Amino acid sequence: MRRIRITIAYDGTAYCGFQLQPDQPTIEGELNRALSALTHETIEVIGASRTDSGVHAAGNAAVFDTQSTIPAEKFALAAAPFLPADIRITGGIEVPQDWHPRRVSCEKTYRYSFSCGMVEDPAERLYTAFSRRVPDLSRMREAAAYLIGEHDFTSFANPSSQVLLEGGSAVRTITDITIEAVPPMPGHLNTSVNIYVSGNGFLYNMVRIIAGTLMSVGTGLWEPERVEAALKARDRTKAGPTAEARGLTLCEIRYPQL
Amino acid sequence: MRRIRITIAYDGTAYCGFQLQPDQPTIEGELNRALSALTHETIEVIGASRTDSGVHAAGNAAVFDTQSTIPAEKFALAAAPFLPADIRITGGIEVPQDWHPRRVSCEKTYRYSFSCGMVEDPAERLYTAFSRRVPDLSRMREAAAYLIGEHDFTSFANPSSQVLLEGGSAVRTITDITIEAVPPMPGHLNTSVNIYVSGNGFLYNMVRIIAGTLMSVGTGLWEPERVEAALKARDRTKAGPTAEARGLTLCEIRYPQL
Repeated sequence: MRRIRITIAYDGTAYCGFQLQPDQPTIEGELNRALSALTHETIEVIGASRTDSGVHAAGNAAVFDTQSTIPAEKFALAAAPFLPADIRITGGIEVPQDWHPRRVSCEKTYRYSFSCGMVEDPAERLYTAFSRRVPDLSRMREAAAYLIGEHDFTSFANPSSQVLLEGGSAVRTITDITIEAVPPMPGHLNTSVNIYVSGNGFLYNMVRIIAGTLMSVGTGLWEPERVEAALKARDRTKAGPTAEARGLTLCEIRYPQL
Repeated sequence: MRRIRITIAYDGTAYCGFQLQPDQPTIEGELNRALSALTHETIEVIGASRTDSGVHAAGNAAVFDTQSTIPAEKFALAAAPFLPADIRITGGIEVPQDWHPRRVSCEKTYRYSFSCGMVEDPAERLYTAFSRRVPDLSRMREAAAYLIGEHDFTSFANPSSQVLLEGGSAVRTITDITIEAVPPMPGHLNTSVNIYVSGNGFLYNMVRIIAGTLMSVGTGLWEPERVEAALKARDRTKAGPTAEARGLTLCEIRYPQL
């Protein structure tokens, strides 16, 4: 038996999230189906990040065990004909048999994108949330600074988070938040405001609540200092709204070298 | 009666092109339906560019006549609730009653995008064609230079073009071809190769045949000089393949100021 770690990219629009659910389209379900068809085995992947319904990924990861002799790095091309066009395996590497993608410390980077203009750009609607107002980036950066470092992020987590319900810790470390505005390229209508959030772990809906809160600051609804107060309160009702799933992409998971 | 010129953006994926067809989803059909519902009149738009099935637009145009008192520039916001999410009116201006969007000389810019990498990026699949090979831009630019200016573009038109079947002229002027490579942004997998083609008019499939031909040069299948020979031959079989519809976006139509 070999354990293979794959990287995965997907357009989450059509899926009820990563995690397997009976009778629902899921990323995990499609990966299991495609890899089983390819290898003629019963493959069950273990996902690194169980992204929500409608959330996208450019660099999620998963592992699976196989007796196949396909070289690890060849799974990307070999599996493509078995996968729907909105899911692709983008790389593969062999890992130790006991290597588990959620039990190894790592750093993740998410992107949250807002498309800002008078009307929504049809060609961006699947991968961005829409804002009629262009936010003030300096206000957003000032607010974001309060979130950098190790904090209790209870205020920035969905209270129905399994971890929190089970009494687990809400302490996480955000290593970086970078906010950029990208003017429209030819053939696009709107300015994109991208919020890149990196950290060592994220609670349920955490990046979407951070994005919604920073947007409240950027559009003038909130003062930047209110983010510090929200963080200290450890109370979900003190932070801003949860931004829509469609604007969120898991860009990358950085694991230690094997 | 007032004549309103609107600019239109759409994701063409789900449509059988711009032009009205019975029992088929079309951009024209959706615009007629939405504007009629908004104004309580029977609106029939006249399109500027009747883009093909699967082709996108950021700046197509159309006119329609109405007795509505809605200010021209307000149609974008007013019509949005009546339109599907993949079609948006982005602007409006009142024009003379006899102004016709296909009888006024104008310049159009199209973008053709290839996404180049080992595997296709799910988040780009709807708006780019995929190429496993990254083309050589200097070869493409050398080939593109042969196409600039006024030429007979018979070789670069679908022979079933209505204009050609009716014995019309295939002489058109290409004013500019700009080719750029954009490295992947965070959260994207592949390098985008964008071909921007500007001109005063285009034959059926002309930009897609230019894109397919330039890609043949860029990937080494063709020598750049072969494009000059293809142009002179006035024979469709001498030019390269027609690139897929999904990679094409009508970026802009520039009309003279009213």
